[in-house]
Amino acid sequence: MSTEKCFAKGSAAPGPVPEGYIRIYSMRFCPFAHRAILVLNAKGIKHEIININLKDKPEWFLEKNPLGLVPTLETPAGEVIYESPITCDYLDEVYPEKKLLPSSPFGKAQQKMMLEHFSKVVPYFYKISTGRQKGEDVSGLEGELTEKFAKLNEDLVNKKTKYFGGDAITMIDYMMWPFFERLEIFGLTHCLDNTPELKMWTDCMSQDLAVKATRHSVDMYKGFYKTYIEGKPNYDYGL
Amino acid sequence: MSTEKCFAKGSAAPGPVPEGYIRIYSMRFCPFAHRAILVLNAKGIKHEIININLKDKPEWFLEKNPLGLVPTLETPAGEVIYESPITCDYLDEVYPEKKLLPSSPFGKAQQKMMLEHFSKVVPYFYKISTGRQKGEDVSGLEGELTEKFAKLNEDLVNKKTKYFGGDAITMIDYMMWPFFERLEIFGLTHCLDNTPELKMWTDCMSQDLAVKATRHSVDMYKGFYKTYIEGKPNYDYGL
Repeated sequence: MSTEKCFAKGSAAPGPVPEGYIRIYSMRFCPFAHRAILVLNAKGIKHEIININLKDKPEWFLEKNPLGLVPTLETPAGEVIYESPITCDYLDEVYPEKKLLPSSPFGKAQQKMMLEHFSKVVPYFYKISTGRQKGEDVSGLEGELTEKFAKLNEDLVNKKTKYFGGDAITMIDYMMWPFFERLEIFGLTHCLDNTPELKMWTDCMSQDLAVKATRHSVDMYKGFYKTYIEGKPNYDYGL
Repeated sequence: MSTEKCFAKGSAAPGPVPEGYIRIYSMRFCPFAHRAILVLNAKGIKHEIININLKDKPEWFLEKNPLGLVPTLETPAGEVIYESPITCDYLDEVYPEKKLLPSSPFGKAQQKMMLEHFSKVVPYFYKISTGRQKGEDVSGLEGELTEKFAKLNEDLVNKKTKYFGGDAITMIDYMMWPFFERLEIFGLTHCLDNTPELKMWTDCMSQDLAVKATRHSVDMYKGFYKTYIEGKPNYDYGL
């Protein structure tokens, strides 16, 4: 993960993207940006990370991406690409080394359908942690999330594979991983108690080199999330 | 558009998909299914349409697609693909005739980003028409939609092209079109009053052969939407 402090409103814009590199605008703790960072690492793509203060965004960043979201990619030609699945597909298509998406149209469609299903799981992580913070009863939401995890587990059981796209890591695994890496911080590890295959998947993922290279310690996450939940996110936490 | 009556719960499942054909599970008035139907027509793909009663879905349909949504594609090999952008990308990739997506990774990413922006416009069509039905004041929502249309218009002006992907129709145009075809039914044509380039785009789209081949008359739409808004959708309206 990057060790560069974030750029905020009023900061000078970085220079052009160096030839042979791709730039990613990121935030060190953002799970969506983490997806693209995993792909950059897995494929060995030379990249430069510019961290953004998401509470106080630089004007020049909003000019590049009016939505102001990370991850955003920028090429030396000045092309700008955003939305995490779009950035990851773009990287996989432009850089042929270690393809992460299947080559067959149906294989690709399957990965997209899995991602679509998973996109309905993502909101739970946030709803549960913010609900808890407000002292709400989140047991119903936790039950629903546990059911979603059971479905994911069933998927691995039916496929008889270690990963969601087969016996090797593919794109869908990297798309899902950032949320599982944060399970302990969200206080949700117990939701894996009855899903042994999904638990095994998290163990296998933890051994992956790109995952290892981009991982924060639990303490680091906890420190950041504390400031985040208090409404004063310290994007440079731990630097 | 298909003239086959819809299949409901309790109906017998259709046989296997004939060789050389692709099957689409659809609903005659669904704008999302319409996207895939446009792509099938534009590319001249031999297809079979099975209409589904979305209020009373056949059990065999839910077995094929647990989400129970249209469009869903099925191949002679029994492969099942759903979610409208995923089905359209799949069709464009499998059938090389008349490619609708650009070949360059950045061109593709641009279309996906436009679609992502447009996906934030779609909910307005529904919110405004159901709000009106309930007698609510929807002028605020209409103002917001008008602003979104102004952004789309600006996009065409900046690009100096007739269509959203250049001077010929590409995928993004077909993704957006079904909602514009229904503008009159939603009672929203006045939102185009100050967007001449966008209005021109709708005129050009209306001349497209795939659009013409898949279009319902305004009366047909109005008849269906009346039953839909009353909570008793007649999916076979007009047959």
